Amino acid sequence: MEQKGILIVISGFSGAGKGTLVRALLKKYDEYVLSISMTTRTPRQGEQEGVEYFFTDREHFEETIERDGLVEYAQYCGNYYGTPKAYVEEQLAAGRNVILEIEIQGALKVKKKYPECLLIFVTPPNVEELERRLVGRGTESREIIKKRMSRAVEESEGVEAYDYIVVNDRLEECVEEIHYLVNAARRAPVRRKEFIQGIRKELLSLAKGVQE
Amino acid sequence: MEQKGILIVISGFSGAGKGTLVRALLKKYDEYVLSISMTTRTPRQGEQEGVEYFFTDREHFEETIERDGLVEYAQYCGNYYGTPKAYVEEQLAAGRNVILEIEIQGALKVKKKYPECLLIFVTPPNVEELERRLVGRGTESREIIKKRMSRAVEESEGVEAYDYIVVNDRLEECVEEIHYLVNAARRAPVRRKEFIQGIRKELLSLAKGVQE
Repeated sequence: MEQKGILIVISGFSGAGKGTLVRALLKKYDEYVLSISMTTRTPRQGEQEGVEYFFTDREHFEETIERDGLVEYAQYCGNYYGTPKAYVEEQLAAGRNVILEIEIQGALKVKKKYPECLLIFVTPPNVEELERRLVGRGTESREIIKKRMSRAVEESEGVEAYDYIVVNDRLEECVEEIHYLVNAARRAPVRRKEFIQGIRKELLSLAKGVQE
Repeated sequence: MEQKGILIVISGFSGAGKGTLVRALLKKYDEYVLSISMTTRTPRQGEQEGVEYFFTDREHFEETIERDGLVEYAQYCGNYYGTPKAYVEEQLAAGRNVILEIEIQGALKVKKKYPECLLIFVTPPNVEELERRLVGRGTESREIIKKRMSRAVEESEGVEAYDYIVVNDRLEECVEEIHYLVNAARRAPVRRKEFIQGIRKELLSLAKGVQE
């Protein structure tokens, strides 16, 4: 078993409870850490550098893009948001599983760059529940609901690109399920490259020995 | 969760202990059945129709090939060997996981035909153990060892096509690991098609409702 951590991308429908799920996972198991994003937006009251975000300016952010220092990034409302590579790779090398909570477009970019990352999509247990969570309690504007809905449609179109779909019905069970899936994922060839290389090398030298 | 069974292909290096592993899995959990092959070879002493094999003649076997009635087939020493579709599909429909124990070429053919099948590759824990099992106790001919070795090299080249690699170190643990991986595999999108289709359909109709 290789001891490097796994990069885990968690996405899911609006209202699927990803945030709660991730917090519960972090609390329960030491081997997970949350990736901290870098942003150019101004800190809000109470936000601390290196806790909620790494705060920076546009110049430094664009320099970081230039030198390929981000796992992924996006612009939103005129600000940059991105995942610094250095922190992620440091944690993975230390054997910790790093969680990114990002939407589908970002998830696909990460998979392209890190084929060994694990994509998990979180969904409510059924369509009735999904509707309830998307539409809300009738207190939200039609515009917000429309936006959420079209995003959910887009997400549902891309779900085949994910490694696993988990149903968030009961929080505790869902946390266990994610932990279970991460352990299963360690057995995929893409995450056992060293083991495979070792076997191949040895087999070739054995085969050579037998031929002589 | 869909209730259909999963088609599981188990391959692995010669001497990896696949046979023992599969028998232990079948004994421990009711939800697994072993696929029974059809062959044109003559039954050996004690072999029973429908237990070790379904025995048949070349004409019937070739008819079965013609009407696409086999999951996969191969010729070996002048005889046909193949996996009848009817039995496999019946068992899957009844919610049982069907195990095929076949080599890599067959495994790849099955994956092409059944993209939702699960490919598991079994390996000894390390190269020393692999060597011991391949070379044996010095009682076997150089020809047999050469053959095994070149097959193992071929298998090691194709291992990336498998979903999971499991290390057969301790039998009991390895049985549990396979059972664990099969359960994890149920969360992959390729095996949750109905659930995904259901969500998509409902989302589209919800989105339409919001637009109006």
